[in-house]
Amino acid sequence: MKAGVIGATGYAGAELVRLLAGHPNVDGLELSSVSYEGDRIENVYPNFFKKASAELKKADAVIETADVVFSSLPHGVGETFAKACIERGKPFIDLSADFRFGSDEATFSAWYGKSYQYPELRELSVYGLPELNRQAIKAKNGRVIVGNPGCYPTAAILGAMPALAKGMAGPGTIIVDAASGITGGGREPTRAYHFPECADALSPYKVGCHRHTPEIARNFAAVAGRAVPLVFTPHLAPMNRGILATIYIPLVDAQLLGPHRPPSEEIAAKTAAIHALYAEFYKDEPFMRVLPMGSVAVTNRVRQSNFCDISIHLDQTGSMLIVISVIDNMVKGAAGQAIQNMNIVYGFAEDAGLSAVPSLF
Amino acid sequence: MKAGVIGATGYAGAELVRLLAGHPNVDGLELSSVSYEGDRIENVYPNFFKKASAELKKADAVIETADVVFSSLPHGVGETFAKACIERGKPFIDLSADFRFGSDEATFSAWYGKSYQYPELRELSVYGLPELNRQAIKAKNGRVIVGNPGCYPTAAILGAMPALAKGMAGPGTIIVDAASGITGGGREPTRAYHFPECADALSPYKVGCHRHTPEIARNFAAVAGRAVPLVFTPHLAPMNRGILATIYIPLVDAQLLGPHRPPSEEIAAKTAAIHALYAEFYKDEPFMRVLPMGSVAVTNRVRQSNFCDISIHLDQTGSMLIVISVIDNMVKGAAGQAIQNMNIVYGFAEDAGLSAVPSLF
Amino acid sequence: MKAGVIGATGYAGAELVRLLAGHPNVDGLELSSVSYEGDRIENVYPNFFKKASAELKKADAVIETADVVFSSLPHGVGETFAKACIERGKPFIDLSADFRFGSDEATFSAWYGKSYQYPELRELSVYGLPELNRQAIKAKNGRVIVGNPGCYPTAAILGAMPALAKGMAGPGTIIVDAASGITGGGREPTRAYHFPECADALSPYKVGCHRHTPEIARNFAAVAGRAVPLVFTPHLAPMNRGILATIYIPLVDAQLLGPHRPPSEEIAAKTAAIHALYAEFYKDEPFMRVLPMGSVAVTNRVRQSNFCDISIHLDQTGSMLIVISVIDNMVKGAAGQAIQNMNIVYGFAEDAGLSAVPSLF
Amino acid sequence: MKAGVIGATGYAGAELVRLLAGHPNVDGLELSSVSYEGDRIENVYPNFFKKASAELKKADAVIETADVVFSSLPHGVGETFAKACIERGKPFIDLSADFRFGSDEATFSAWYGKSYQYPELRELSVYGLPELNRQAIKAKNGRVIVGNPGCYPTAAILGAMPALAKGMAGPGTIIVDAASGITGGGREPTRAYHFPECADALSPYKVGCHRHTPEIARNFAAVAGRAVPLVFTPHLAPMNRGILATIYIPLVDAQLLGPHRPPSEEIAAKTAAIHALYAEFYKDEPFMRVLPMGSVAVTNRVRQSNFCDISIHLDQTGSMLIVISVIDNMVKGAAGQAIQNMNIVYGFAEDAGLSAVPSLF
Repeated sequence: MKAGVIGATGYAGAELVRLLAGHPNVDGLELSSVSYEGDRIENVYPNFFKKASAELKKADAVIETADVVFSSLPHGVGETFAKACIERGKPFIDLSADFRFGSDEATFSAWYGKSYQYPELRELSVYGLPELNRQAIKAKNGRVIVGNPGCYPTAAILGAMPALAKGMAGPGTIIVDAASGITGGGREPTRAYHFPECADALSPYKVGCHRHTPEIARNFAAVAGRAVPLVFTPHLAPMNRGILATIYIPLVDAQLLGPHRPPSEEIAAKTAAIHALYAEFYKDEPFMRVLPMGSVAVTNRVRQSNFCDISIHLDQTGSMLIVISVIDNMVKGAAGQAIQNMNIVYGFAEDAGLSAVPSLF
Repeated sequence: MKAGVIGATGYAGAELVRLLAGHPNVDGLELSSVSYEGDRIENVYPNFFKKASAELKKADAVIETADVVFSSLPHGVGETFAKACIERGKPFIDLSADFRFGSDEATFSAWYGKSYQYPELRELSVYGLPELNRQAIKAKNGRVIVGNPGCYPTAAILGAMPALAKGMAGPGTIIVDAASGITGGGREPTRAYHFPECADALSPYKVGCHRHTPEIARNFAAVAGRAVPLVFTPHLAPMNRGILATIYIPLVDAQLLGPHRPPSEEIAAKTAAIHALYAEFYKDEPFMRVLPMGSVAVTNRVRQSNFCDISIHLDQTGSMLIVISVIDNMVKGAAGQAIQNMNIVYGFAEDAGLSAVPSLF
Repeated sequence: MKAGVIGATGYAGAELVRLLAGHPNVDGLELSSVSYEGDRIENVYPNFFKKASAELKKADAVIETADVVFSSLPHGVGETFAKACIERGKPFIDLSADFRFGSDEATFSAWYGKSYQYPELRELSVYGLPELNRQAIKAKNGRVIVGNPGCYPTAAILGAMPALAKGMAGPGTIIVDAASGITGGGREPTRAYHFPECADALSPYKVGCHRHTPEIARNFAAVAGRAVPLVFTPHLAPMNRGILATIYIPLVDAQLLGPHRPPSEEIAAKTAAIHALYAEFYKDEPFMRVLPMGSVAVTNRVRQSNFCDISIHLDQTGSMLIVISVIDNMVKGAAGQAIQNMNIVYGFAEDAGLSAVPSLF
Repeated sequence: MKAGVIGATGYAGAELVRLLAGHPNVDGLELSSVSYEGDRIENVYPNFFKKASAELKKADAVIETADVVFSSLPHGVGETFAKACIERGKPFIDLSADFRFGSDEATFSAWYGKSYQYPELRELSVYGLPELNRQAIKAKNGRVIVGNPGCYPTAAILGAMPALAKGMAGPGTIIVDAASGITGGGREPTRAYHFPECADALSPYKVGCHRHTPEIARNFAAVAGRAVPLVFTPHLAPMNRGILATIYIPLVDAQLLGPHRPPSEEIAAKTAAIHALYAEFYKDEPFMRVLPMGSVAVTNRVRQSNFCDISIHLDQTGSMLIVISVIDNMVKGAAGQAIQNMNIVYGFAEDAGLSAVPSLF
């Protein structure tokens, strides 16, 4: 099978190339790039030398020759390519936000400032979070546009899903306080990602106005069956890979007692019960790891892998569930999840090409 | 004046030495160290070579010869030294938690697992956050034990104080989600601070059970005049210096509308009003910088300085105040604040020895 | 085949586990650890959770049950295990220095302060740098002890080998100025590797006395067929993985003209000729990448891979060959090269288990 | 006194502002910027908020109103400003390379591709390395253009000067293998300094062709009284501040014996003799610290200070002197040295404004 990547020279595109080069069911890569058209991928990314080699073509050429097409373009410019793929009976897996909001064009437009070009394509699209929508992805029988989730939403939704699905969450606001490694900002050099400005520093950004807010909220609502008040704050951390989401979920049975004493045995027992529920919820998921009680999820335990690690905690009063959810932003948060979606679409082993053992360092 | 530092070879102790070496009112350093007794500070910290030179003595010798004594010892071992200082009429500025809880021994014991040795010393002690207790520090007329605040509590209290004092905060839980540079863990090598384990990684720790929780809570309560439900989560970030606290304060007039639209002009106006209140609240404080509207506080703008930078934000519904509060954990979060307290005790210029211009990198 | 790792909980041991877990010819892991005996590897390294699982046994048990044994123990303690393996007809691949000096016990003793316990084992041992000794490794027919090279020697020897073998190097001193990521220091926390002491810092160490000096020198001599004067200086760089060696080789036809002008076309032509010779020398090597003219080898192009990247340069006078040689210190510099040696011993594809595409970040 | 900075918004310019803001003899700042003309320095660098405040003017306005002018412009564009300062009797301290080569326009042109605009200005210029040229700087009596040295040349010349001046260096090639923190690349975001590309990586650059080569060589020659063959290789290290130069100086009495044994007592004695000579050579220099025998100079011991730390080593044969020389590239390597030069020109205490105690972290 030939896999195509449109926008192969951005970081997510290059990570797709890296992972697809080792995929057992993929035997050819078709790549496009506007900035480097005519050049070769291994010149743009010399780390690929001797491992992945391909000319960078036009997107149209990729669509003609590839069997499945991944698109790693900016928001709002890929619908034509999606349409072309569908017309040719080829799955289109889109890493932009264009197909993450389904028929809710109003929300997409409000946050992204663009309209849908071909609204009817949403009948074929599905939000590609396998742990939430695996059956829907399969049910499209290959005639499918996958809206691959955003990096923060992936961590947030996977962290909150069991609590929301099982009615543990009370009516209060869920706060998702998250941080990302700097690869999340992409390959274009800007001051915010200039080494001397971001090394040895921690920076919140787009506080109260990040576009992943509605993506998280609509999926929280889908899981909970009701609107869920949400505050989301992203930060930039001085590391290359990783997203960490610290998720605060007010429990339905919250009884605030104040921080007068350290956690009691009663609270430990309550934590264990929630932990058991999470472990059960995700027990068949190949990429979910609910860590043992007492462990804390940290970003460098999932590095280079498609895993999402989750740890379960309560505050000292037992009223607030605190879930730590970590992923590699470039893998489960982008390219890896896209390949997981491809595997589901084609009925491959879900971890085909995604079997790397996480590297501690 | 001779300044003494007990426990001079830990990181906070060494930072005291670094700052005191440049203090215009200090002309001698008396230092102690258990681990390095008999050696010299410039051998332990060669960065002091040609700048600070002193033999490392016993604590008792420091107390005899210094005019003011800073103590940078572990919790629960410094009360004898405090007593000795008071008996000699010398101010004692303690960087441990021993004097942060005043007469509330129950809370101290519950979280630190130790009892007060000389409970009566708390009549002379004061919680050394100048922006909160400047007058109380002065009022002791030099017969004083200063309980220098913890690093996280400093960032958290300064970030929330105007909202709590001015009645903006509603009855809901305040969440303080914070991260610290790795110097916060001290000088002893352990696996958690071993470079390969913490570089390029973000790690929550002591989730729901960190000892700074009751310190923050009791001061929130002191400011608000009521108990304030609090959840506090610390993280370790791969940088040397800095604490960033992202503080979520439910507003008293909260009306959750859901994340359906990006922030409106109405919300911008509400943000501006809160910003004005914060700016007014701190307008005479030498080390508080309420950043202009639209700016975001980041850790590398206060590096090496005693400043606390604050930025003001609202979530997309206008219901949650999000305050970003940043300090250098070793300066305003430890040694610098201790010197600020000394300056207040002695009536020196409050920024004496603390006039460094923050270094961006 | 079952692979055994003695000393599996050090960094090199854990990297062996990580790579062996994905090796197509290995279907079982037998692991030992003195520090964690009785525990499980995935508890010590939670990144292995769901990917590698094994009890940590005694070394003797590993030797009984494994088909091939890797040893990642400190210098001077593994000879008994080597002997036991040889007696059982099992290849022994040793990551310590014990078998890197062959019959030259005098040099080993002078630098490591230990004697050989079973000198006769050296008749079966070979220095495991495949690019230098592939035939010798094969020729042992499985009755072999592989002395896996040190990390710095691997980078240094691969960088200088073509120049030494082809008579380009003059009689002058070769200088190897190298730097390593901090994983090279191992897993034990010490002050030198404590994050606040080594982040944002560059530190030379063991200047003029590092033990890899004689290992490099004897292999330079083996290639050149004469003694080669050598100076080697290692540095510690604030990164996790990677070794960079900047190798200064005085050319046999050196004519020092002084630095009065930038490089001329004549020098560019001379560089190209040397580059061509290097490219030819390594053209059949699976893990050697001689970069195109004009490129510079950097550590993050080989990260997580078994590649050695080399770039070729001349100084402005055309007298000094400057070779940049980079490897991942944990892979080609340790665990990966050990597996490459296993592949050679068993006649597997030389890149079996080592096919990872290097990750730029 | 009013100090002016032309090009105040680059990194070196901003570091000048940071240091001048704390200079006891400077009571006003006059700043210019082409990119930010009309804006204020504290908006461009918010770390200056409450500490340094000035409008960014045109360079001409700075020259009119300042008493001394620092220029932090690109090479080849500042001569007009130098001329204007001299005409007004104001010292001009230039951080570009324009005045580092004195009357040797040929070398400057060959390496920088530009001609001198006003060659006659070189009669007033002096190479501003105080440890080499202090008397010459003073002798100009304020009618002076200071060519402030490059960052690498500062570290290299200070490290080699005693050996060259005292006849210890033999006729062989001196190799300066150096690395810089990333602030050395300036404030403009480019791919080479984009965090994900340079974090966790070590990169040589401009191998065999860096412009600091002739600057180092001509000063080596000036000290030695003869041409000195030189090879210089710079690297980029993943840290913000610091330059480390590892300098290989073949000794005049070199007798290469091969690396057969670790260093002997004889070599230790020879090292001690050279160390004593270095210590004596620099004993009156305020910013030179020859570290005690056995210590190794590392970049984070001079951070934020104007110190140059030097450690002395020999290779295992006693033939090669290895000097480690470290500075903070932004202070002694740029802004601090410029201020040191101003202090000399005006007869201020040489460490006025430069008294910061280095910060370990």
